[in-house]
Amino acid sequence: MALKLYGAPMSTCTSRVLTCLHEKDLDFELVIVDLFAGEHKQPPFLAKNPFGQIPALEDDDLTLFESRAITSYVAERFKETGYDLIRHQNIKEAALVKVWTEVESQQFHPAIAPIIFQFLVAPLQGNLPDQTIIDTNLEKLGKVLDIYEAKLTSTKYLAGDFYSLADLHHLPYAYYLMKTPAASVVNERPHVKAWWEDISSRPAFKKVAEGMNFGEK
Amino acid sequence: MALKLYGAPMSTCTSRVLTCLHEKDLDFELVIVDLFAGEHKQPPFLAKNPFGQIPALEDDDLTLFESRAITSYVAERFKETGYDLIRHQNIKEAALVKVWTEVESQQFHPAIAPIIFQFLVAPLQGNLPDQTIIDTNLEKLGKVLDIYEAKLTSTKYLAGDFYSLADLHHLPYAYYLMKTPAASVVNERPHVKAWWEDISSRPAFKKVAEGMNFGEK
Repeated sequence: MALKLYGAPMSTCTSRVLTCLHEKDLDFELVIVDLFAGEHKQPPFLAKNPFGQIPALEDDDLTLFESRAITSYVAERFKETGYDLIRHQNIKEAALVKVWTEVESQQFHPAIAPIIFQFLVAPLQGNLPDQTIIDTNLEKLGKVLDIYEAKLTSTKYLAGDFYSLADLHHLPYAYYLMKTPAASVVNERPHVKAWWEDISSRPAFKKVAEGMNFGEK
Repeated sequence: MALKLYGAPMSTCTSRVLTCLHEKDLDFELVIVDLFAGEHKQPPFLAKNPFGQIPALEDDDLTLFESRAITSYVAERFKETGYDLIRHQNIKEAALVKVWTEVESQQFHPAIAPIIFQFLVAPLQGNLPDQTIIDTNLEKLGKVLDIYEAKLTSTKYLAGDFYSLADLHHLPYAYYLMKTPAASVVNERPHVKAWWEDISSRPAFKKVAEGMNFGEK
């Protein structure tokens, strides 16, 4: 099998790609990159991704990085295999998948990432979570989720009445968020909560979540 | 003509889409959204983009927002028109366009955006630019551009030896950066400087740059 994913199961960005590979029913080899040993900053991995971040995907002689570029490539390249994540037969639906995929990237991610960092990464670095950073970003995230709540009253998923890459991209960070006291930002919004429960219970993600034990003792 | 772009010529995100529309040789109508009057936060515009940010694009009955989703849609929908920004006939090149488009979004943009905000937006709000924020982000941006410098020694553009959406997406923020003292972060890196001079001199962008007078007296 030609697909080789370099990453770590507990990493949010690796999980994003793993979930996509499972939705597409693809065979692949997962090559573990040891973050604690700093393997992602060593020349063999830097040759795959000069930014020194996991994951990277090899498809024969093609090497890709940036998780959202990888999922987009996989969804397009294997569009006839497994679940269609990009609505490739309908240009309008496909366009709305692009829009809400960018919303995840530009609106949701910048607000949720610092919260997860404070709750899960800071303690590993010997620091207490910075409550000011958490509060500031939780307020931002709440405003983003207010718009999701309104959107999800009219369609079942973000881009329309179909699960897509736009929903999938949210899974890893939301999964870790739901293990923290900040989960209330989701639970207080009924449509967002129902959407989260739906997308996180898909078999492809449940398989991936088994390996997501970051920050657990 | 069915394409209608709602935005403002001086806005970085509007400029990104305008440059794409010109590269594709498309006819469109630009509908000005008056930011200073807060038109982007009023119901008529919020119906197009609930996040209240310009630009938005209407293509007949389809309404799109998020500049990078719009350019990606336009480049795909009109792939046979004007300049091919996504290398649609070569799946490997198209994949590398996706990778470097995500690099702009996840590595370059988060570093450059706060710098431009401090130099151009803060003074409009009656504040002095915060030098600490500028310095911190300039250091981040320098590290990103070190990787660009290395990449651009082996290929003429980011995704390969062809200009693509990945390069195009950098233009608006880099254009404003080059008008500030922070331009040195580009000028000190010879391959990045040559790349900037090349991509910013394309006729499509030169036309757009005429309207980019944000922060000018």
